Amino acid sequence: MINLYDNAFLEPILLNDLNEKWKRCARRIIISTTLSKSGHPGGSLSSLHTLISLYAVMKHDPEDLMFAERDRLILSIGHISPAVYSVLAEYGYFDEEDFFLGFRRAGHVFSGHVEMDVPGVEWNTGNLGQGLSVGSGVALSLRLKGIASKVFVHMGDGEQQKGQIAEARRFAAKYKLSNLVGIIDRNFLQIGGNTEEVMPTNIREEYLAAGWNVRYVPFGHDFSQILSAFKDIFIEYEPSERPTVLVMRTVMGHGVSIMENKAKYHGSVLSVDDAKATLKELGFAPEELDYWIERRNREDLAPKKYIHIDSLYPEILTGSPRLYTIDKKTDCRSAYGEALKDLAVANNIENLPKITGFSCDLETSVKMQGFRFICPYCFFEAGIQEHHAATAAGAMSREGLVTFFSTFGVFAVNETANQHRLNDQNKANLKIVSTHLGLDVGEDGPTHQAIDYIGIMQNIPGFSIIMPADANQTDRVIRYIASKKGNFFVGMGRSLLPTITKEDGVTPFYDLEYVFEPGKLDFLRTGDTATIISYGTILTNVMEAYKLLLIEGIKVTVVNAASISPIDRKTIINIAKNQPLLTVEDHFTHTGLGAIIKSIMAEEMISQKIKSLGVTKYGGSGKPQDLYALQGLDPKSIATELKRLITK
Amino acid sequence: MINLYDNAFLEPILLNDLNEKWKRCARRIIISTTLSKSGHPGGSLSSLHTLISLYAVMKHDPEDLMFAERDRLILSIGHISPAVYSVLAEYGYFDEEDFFLGFRRAGHVFSGHVEMDVPGVEWNTGNLGQGLSVGSGVALSLRLKGIASKVFVHMGDGEQQKGQIAEARRFAAKYKLSNLVGIIDRNFLQIGGNTEEVMPTNIREEYLAAGWNVRYVPFGHDFSQILSAFKDIFIEYEPSERPTVLVMRTVMGHGVSIMENKAKYHGSVLSVDDAKATLKELGFAPEELDYWIERRNREDLAPKKYIHIDSLYPEILTGSPRLYTIDKKTDCRSAYGEALKDLAVANNIENLPKITGFSCDLETSVKMQGFRFICPYCFFEAGIQEHHAATAAGAMSREGLVTFFSTFGVFAVNETANQHRLNDQNKANLKIVSTHLGLDVGEDGPTHQAIDYIGIMQNIPGFSIIMPADANQTDRVIRYIASKKGNFFVGMGRSLLPTITKEDGVTPFYDLEYVFEPGKLDFLRTGDTATIISYGTILTNVMEAYKLLLIEGIKVTVVNAASISPIDRKTIINIAKNQPLLTVEDHFTHTGLGAIIKSIMAEEMISQKIKSLGVTKYGGSGKPQDLYALQGLDPKSIATELKRLITK
Repeated sequence: MINLYDNAFLEPILLNDLNEKWKRCARRIIISTTLSKSGHPGGSLSSLHTLISLYAVMKHDPEDLMFAERDRLILSIGHISPAVYSVLAEYGYFDEEDFFLGFRRAGHVFSGHVEMDVPGVEWNTGNLGQGLSVGSGVALSLRLKGIASKVFVHMGDGEQQKGQIAEARRFAAKYKLSNLVGIIDRNFLQIGGNTEEVMPTNIREEYLAAGWNVRYVPFGHDFSQILSAFKDIFIEYEPSERPTVLVMRTVMGHGVSIMENKAKYHGSVLSVDDAKATLKELGFAPEELDYWIERRNREDLAPKKYIHIDSLYPEILTGSPRLYTIDKKTDCRSAYGEALKDLAVANNIENLPKITGFSCDLETSVKMQGFRFICPYCFFEAGIQEHHAATAAGAMSREGLVTFFSTFGVFAVNETANQHRLNDQNKANLKIVSTHLGLDVGEDGPTHQAIDYIGIMQNIPGFSIIMPADANQTDRVIRYIASKKGNFFVGMGRSLLPTITKEDGVTPFYDLEYVFEPGKLDFLRTGDTATIISYGTILTNVMEAYKLLLIEGIKVTVVNAASISPIDRKTIINIAKNQPLLTVEDHFTHTGLGAIIKSIMAEEMISQKIKSLGVTKYGGSGKPQDLYALQGLDPKSIATELKRLITK
Repeated sequence: MINLYDNAFLEPILLNDLNEKWKRCARRIIISTTLSKSGHPGGSLSSLHTLISLYAVMKHDPEDLMFAERDRLILSIGHISPAVYSVLAEYGYFDEEDFFLGFRRAGHVFSGHVEMDVPGVEWNTGNLGQGLSVGSGVALSLRLKGIASKVFVHMGDGEQQKGQIAEARRFAAKYKLSNLVGIIDRNFLQIGGNTEEVMPTNIREEYLAAGWNVRYVPFGHDFSQILSAFKDIFIEYEPSERPTVLVMRTVMGHGVSIMENKAKYHGSVLSVDDAKATLKELGFAPEELDYWIERRNREDLAPKKYIHIDSLYPEILTGSPRLYTIDKKTDCRSAYGEALKDLAVANNIENLPKITGFSCDLETSVKMQGFRFICPYCFFEAGIQEHHAATAAGAMSREGLVTFFSTFGVFAVNETANQHRLNDQNKANLKIVSTHLGLDVGEDGPTHQAIDYIGIMQNIPGFSIIMPADANQTDRVIRYIASKKGNFFVGMGRSLLPTITKEDGVTPFYDLEYVFEPGKLDFLRTGDTATIISYGTILTNVMEAYKLLLIEGIKVTVVNAASISPIDRKTIINIAKNQPLLTVEDHFTHTGLGAIIKSIMAEEMISQKIKSLGVTKYGGSGKPQDLYALQGLDPKSIATELKRLITK
């Protein structure tokens, strides 16, 4: 394990060693980027002294990547991958040869923006502005697990413009994350030129206004200054209740005369000749570049896989399911809240919790207040800061904590889709439980009605999509997803719903024997004329339509497709081969379940009558049932469409 | 026209009048929310003094809603609609009766969150944090048009937590928007309780750090104090180069003893009894509530339509198309940049520009530098602040300026989808031209590769989706969308592409005669065995596959579907009835063009062989053609799949 910070600050031998390390790493940055003919050498050199120093003082171990007490580095500016890979090679994480031959090359792990398939990398980044949120989530997780290690987040100065960073700053200050250390590479250059011309940002004032410690390093290419700042972090600031940011005044391209202080080298590389001149300037033989070019051009290079940092997931007790009888209507939100409480009771032993939750100023609406009451230390109120909350929750979900993120659909899906996309690329284990989906939102109107949650979430392929239809199914689904690794999206509406029953009209369909199974359709009723496939809130209207049709002597099959992704392809094919199909959803028809089923039918060359009912335009502001009626989704309209389908 | 600000400050008669207005408006807030049984009365009362004062000093005219010199109010906290509608009724925009009977009622315009269908409302809001960006876009537009009016943005204090506001603050300061005035209703309560417990925010320090004038109003329920602050705004601060924020210290529920300072009344309403007691407290007859309840319960109420504020759109000269010959490859990005320059030359007369552009620190990559050079005053560099930029550009596009918003697909689509959704609900005229779509992004890797742009954008139904296949088509498409009202998404990749030719291999297919037509498929080649439908960058690989197949004696039809939405349904039906189909796209197969075509086939009960090639998992970091090969999208794989399709 490498861990020098407790005794080695400012020792002359160390400084000398760091300078030698710098030369070797600078050489790697030049060689790798010129070899790949693309990449970001300027910012890599700007941050290089900092990264070398950081790995000298952090607790980390190339032989044991995931030891629990390691300090963490979240690299928010993923594009300075040449610097990161160079430093990781320097500290023994892999051979530089692999990096040189595989950098920015299809099939290889050494991507243009850092990815965790590379040993030592904690989190894939690339989209700017998310790193401080990741660091907050990890820092909170370490605290919950009683681990005293630090979390460093290395950021750019241009990146400070992203609003998500303002959100993360406030959150970290609110939760007194003294184990969180931001580092800003302040070189005053971004792609478009000088940061103060592109978008003036008073970085230090902004962090001060948010209640952070701010430490300025006047020259971020002087190891003494950098180590002195780290000493403050590790020793002086220890009892602090504030997060700290180090602002490192640096120079883009520092140490390479051709590149110094030129915005151009943010994203362009040295020519072979310039690279050779630079290698010479650094004290290396220029000819070695030819050697690497020749080797890289050979076509027999096989991509390597490495042991890398991966997510943790705990064993979860799912508790005893709750049964909701027909006596009263229940909203799925409340069933979620109750199940979450049960999970907390079953799994959250004080000082060693397993279940955590995030919300965004909607705790009561999303029914997390019971969970909060039981585990106040596991519930995180992120304020009206959804981008930050989505990312921080995603980061926590990889640290061995089963993390629930709940807010309205418009915020859980539409506003934060790109944050969840990065969570997904990081193989997080996030449980998004989104309430207030569809026209069922009602009076709050179109800005608050997510009518495209499947259409959006199915573009984030690692997320399963589950839409329970009543309180009983919700209860089982929540327990199920808590016990499973991976990303899940569970969606629900706002209204109270009747308990779905068996044909007898009394026994709950989703009884205590029921176990949720992904990719399984549930046959609620079986008829001989046509099949209605639906899910979620609107299934209640379908069940009403079923009754209306029955009065007219038409008995239809009613199927609940709670598992939208994965979908039960085989059963859908069987249904479509045998009966006309009506799909009904509180969702855009052209991007929802109807479209998924039609794709399957076309692929299977099935010619069958099918009609999709759903939302076809933005909703209005009014009672849900009135809004449904305006778009033909009331029980009577559904029944009418079914009759039209079977008679035409 | 109502416009008192030049002579009426602090006159006792006015103050008396305002107090009377307050009583009448408070009455309306109570009646409307109790009638609808839902809504936000607490925040409405918190902001009521401010709104009444604002309409007393702003230039506005209920008889001429859209007169150019009006001052604007953007209401960022859309949920205080009861206050807004009450004040608008007070100032003669509509009858209070319509509001009482239609508030939060399906089919009526008086939505729970303000919408521009209501006379006097400038912008639909509801999702918090977007208003200051809207105001920035409008303020910039007014300046470009030489109009000296002011833009007020009324915000909440909880809302200040949203990162997008930090972005808007910096942008407004950078562009010295002294005509922009933020107003913050500082009542220290949000849904979750005290703002300082939910998420501590040093509001005034944050605005100061961003370089704003900050004016504090110690008691925002005293008309004298409020008018005095407005006097500063209109008179004292006039020569300022800074935007100004007024922080109004207020009390939630002020003036109604049952509600004062209770977070509960953020989103819940008074019972009939409490409402009656409150009417009495305000000096009105409690019985009138019964009258309104009775009237509202009658079922014969027909929704009314009103004249309302709508978007402006100028006449645009499209200039002379440019022809790209087969001599060299051109990227669509560059063709976009050239067309945009031409549009600027043809339409942007100094002091009266019509074409504007926004980018986010990627000006050169998205090829806007030529446009910027010609019209520096029409180009807005928003920094790495995509959420703000998307909203500000959307707002500007409604002010009679044809506004282009360009950045990489991941930022133009994935990161900002919810901002564009609100633009769409506001019937904006935004031209999103997104570069760097698909695996074609190459070495920057999966975080930077948008592979779901159709899957996402088709959930925002007002946006047309157009994917040109070469430089010539791009040129015509850009000119076309500039000349048309409405929202457009035009997407392209990164690579240089050959010019698509006619069968002779020499003449450009999209020649000078070509006119882009929405909803039209282009037959590039006609064969007798099968049809390949494709679009955008990957069409180049399809054309190569076409040649490979031709060598083997297989002649296929090749169709370019540049217009994805609207789609040429009729032609797709014809094709599908006659030939096996292969769809090829640099996009997820399950949410892209392939899925759209399959839906059409299933709806039309067409049983035909179809295979969809496309992206099936996140891409890697490498050369685009290598990434294509890894997912079976290279010319050879396409040809092989086609053969498999026609032989199986």
